[in-house]
Amino acid sequence: MDSNQFVVNGFSFGAAAAGIKKKGGADLALIFSDRPCSAAGVFTTNRVKAAPVLVSMDRIRRGTARAILANSGNANACTGASGTPAARKAGKVAAAELGIDQEDVLLASTGVIGAPLDTAKIEQAMPSLIGALRRDGLMDAARAIMTTDSFPKLSVFEGETGGRRYRIVGIAKGAGMIMPQMATMLCFVVSDISISSRNLQEALVEAVGTTFNRITVDGDTSTNDTVFILANGAAENPESDKAGLQGFRAGLTGVLGDLARMVVKDGEGATKTVKIEIRGAVSAQQAEKAARTVANSALVKTAFYGQDPNWGRILAALGRSGIDMDPDLVDIQIDSVQIVSHGVTLGAEAEAAGAERMKNPDFSVVIDLHMGAFSDQMLTCDFTHDYVSINADYRT
Amino acid sequence: MDSNQFVVNGFSFGAAAAGIKKKGGADLALIFSDRPCSAAGVFTTNRVKAAPVLVSMDRIRRGTARAILANSGNANACTGASGTPAARKAGKVAAAELGIDQEDVLLASTGVIGAPLDTAKIEQAMPSLIGALRRDGLMDAARAIMTTDSFPKLSVFEGETGGRRYRIVGIAKGAGMIMPQMATMLCFVVSDISISSRNLQEALVEAVGTTFNRITVDGDTSTNDTVFILANGAAENPESDKAGLQGFRAGLTGVLGDLARMVVKDGEGATKTVKIEIRGAVSAQQAEKAARTVANSALVKTAFYGQDPNWGRILAALGRSGIDMDPDLVDIQIDSVQIVSHGVTLGAEAEAAGAERMKNPDFSVVIDLHMGAFSDQMLTCDFTHDYVSINADYRT
Repeated sequence: MDSNQFVVNGFSFGAAAAGIKKKGGADLALIFSDRPCSAAGVFTTNRVKAAPVLVSMDRIRRGTARAILANSGNANACTGASGTPAARKAGKVAAAELGIDQEDVLLASTGVIGAPLDTAKIEQAMPSLIGALRRDGLMDAARAIMTTDSFPKLSVFEGETGGRRYRIVGIAKGAGMIMPQMATMLCFVVSDISISSRNLQEALVEAVGTTFNRITVDGDTSTNDTVFILANGAAENPESDKAGLQGFRAGLTGVLGDLARMVVKDGEGATKTVKIEIRGAVSAQQAEKAARTVANSALVKTAFYGQDPNWGRILAALGRSGIDMDPDLVDIQIDSVQIVSHGVTLGAEAEAAGAERMKNPDFSVVIDLHMGAFSDQMLTCDFTHDYVSINADYRT
Repeated sequence: MDSNQFVVNGFSFGAAAAGIKKKGGADLALIFSDRPCSAAGVFTTNRVKAAPVLVSMDRIRRGTARAILANSGNANACTGASGTPAARKAGKVAAAELGIDQEDVLLASTGVIGAPLDTAKIEQAMPSLIGALRRDGLMDAARAIMTTDSFPKLSVFEGETGGRRYRIVGIAKGAGMIMPQMATMLCFVVSDISISSRNLQEALVEAVGTTFNRITVDGDTSTNDTVFILANGAAENPESDKAGLQGFRAGLTGVLGDLARMVVKDGEGATKTVKIEIRGAVSAQQAEKAARTVANSALVKTAFYGQDPNWGRILAALGRSGIDMDPDLVDIQIDSVQIVSHGVTLGAEAEAAGAERMKNPDFSVVIDLHMGAFSDQMLTCDFTHDYVSINADYRT
């Protein structure tokens, strides 16, 4: 990977080892802009929110920021009264070294829940973290936020608006929608586009809705999920017109979509990435509900692992999802291979052809309810022995 | 087990091998009353309902029946237009041999979904099934409805009302709330009490609400779940007064509770039976929702398997459940060992003591939300490598 493709005007990235991660290695990541940025964020909807989430939710309201400080190895979640002061302290130390207002530092943590965050370690490592800031340091930052991830996750988009080229680059970590002990999904995106924080937030919410909000590994939702985007305007474009904004939104959706797919691909123990596509639902809400229910069914996901086109489990999941449906109308395909027509199997040969597709690491399950005009999709993975191993053995 | 304890006046039970189950063995069960019974039933809420469920829902409306015919090995679900005629045909053959009205035969099926039910096999085996009817044949019937179950599930209760003794005996099968390919949970209860079908239905709905509706193996709901109860009045008690009815309800709840616990204990791949107890919720509905969300979390269940008092996962599940909660108020116990107070760990020693309790095959997780006065509970099991093996390898 050419590290220059991840360079964005005005941004630098760094990583350092503070000794927070038990297994050692880089566990601090810093993203810094040499000028003020429009900033936007999307956070976990879990009622149990980690301290850095609470602090950052408050700071992002101003629509501006200059730095993102993240640590892995400790989620700073369920840490009681000490959580918020610890998060603020970490940000303060970074702000002092960077010479910026501490309110301009956004915070994120991922790792063990319920253990206090040792800010002394962060303070001690701060000079080396600042010293490590480099224009082409994004890969280092991406590695520093990894927990059980098996590969760093980066994506880049180049666009043009008002005659000026700009970039969007993003990194993410996560190998499950939730692993509260290793909580969880973080995504940081930076761009040199000039954009208002309001347009940025709108673009982010829209892009997250069709990307990170449409993936699942185990149906759970973390205490720490965070997506930040900083846009520093270094591209010096004029305020984007409608077409320019649309281009940016499409680019952002592309970057987040890339990263979201990587999170599912890296899902705990996963061997398959599967798109669940619902068509013909009576409403958008029901289409989503149907997709989500199928994508989270333990029985459907174990069947994916077994490469078994077990459509009965899919029909049963749809049936319990609470959506309007008539089993006798349902068609099911694996990729382009139809295996069920009007709720009945097309026979052993069709199922064998479907099973053949399921040997691939990526495939789609297309379900047409034939009830209405709405569709939606979810990206999920299979449910494997390794998922159980990873999650049963984690703390023991 | 003394087979006489499962004898109920006026009832006989039988089993036969019809060749429906691939692996062979008894796959037909028959329960027959020598006189008319009050009858009640509770069925799956899944929109995808098996043919025998649809036929039996219709028949049970009359409040009377005399026989239950069940087969394992084929669920007669998702079998298209041929499903209902096949179910009716099976019942008709039994009714003819028994010399009763075919509407008096209730039907249930469990096994593979999507394959047509071969009624010729049932017809052929019917004489031997009828010939096998015995007063002490309940164990045979319990075995004949097993699929992936590892043991037959029976329970008995003796009560008295109006100076007459009566019995309630029940059998169940199920090793998962759902396995659509082996769908799923069946429970048949008979009693010699004299009771109106209306009182019987009320008692059944109440008892199911606190027993079978409070267990989970994998969070799914089958296409075939059925609970039948027949009461033939052979105890010749006068119509029960309030106390007598209460005694019957308690007895029925006891029998269904026994059977429900056995289903969880026999949950696919399960090594632990865990009671999730919620206290201090703001409403009954929220108490149930909280219990259900924790009981179904893949991460919580894999932690049970790992004997890890991973309270962060429990808090995170509560947080995403949508209930009213304040993480800083939550207390968590494993049996009598408190491990979390006000949302924070009580330390390594407390957690180690909690982990010790989790080595037992049965334990409770008691969660006090300290928000209100409502409580509820769910019985669940752990999520193991064997669950994945059973469900990934089933058809392949």
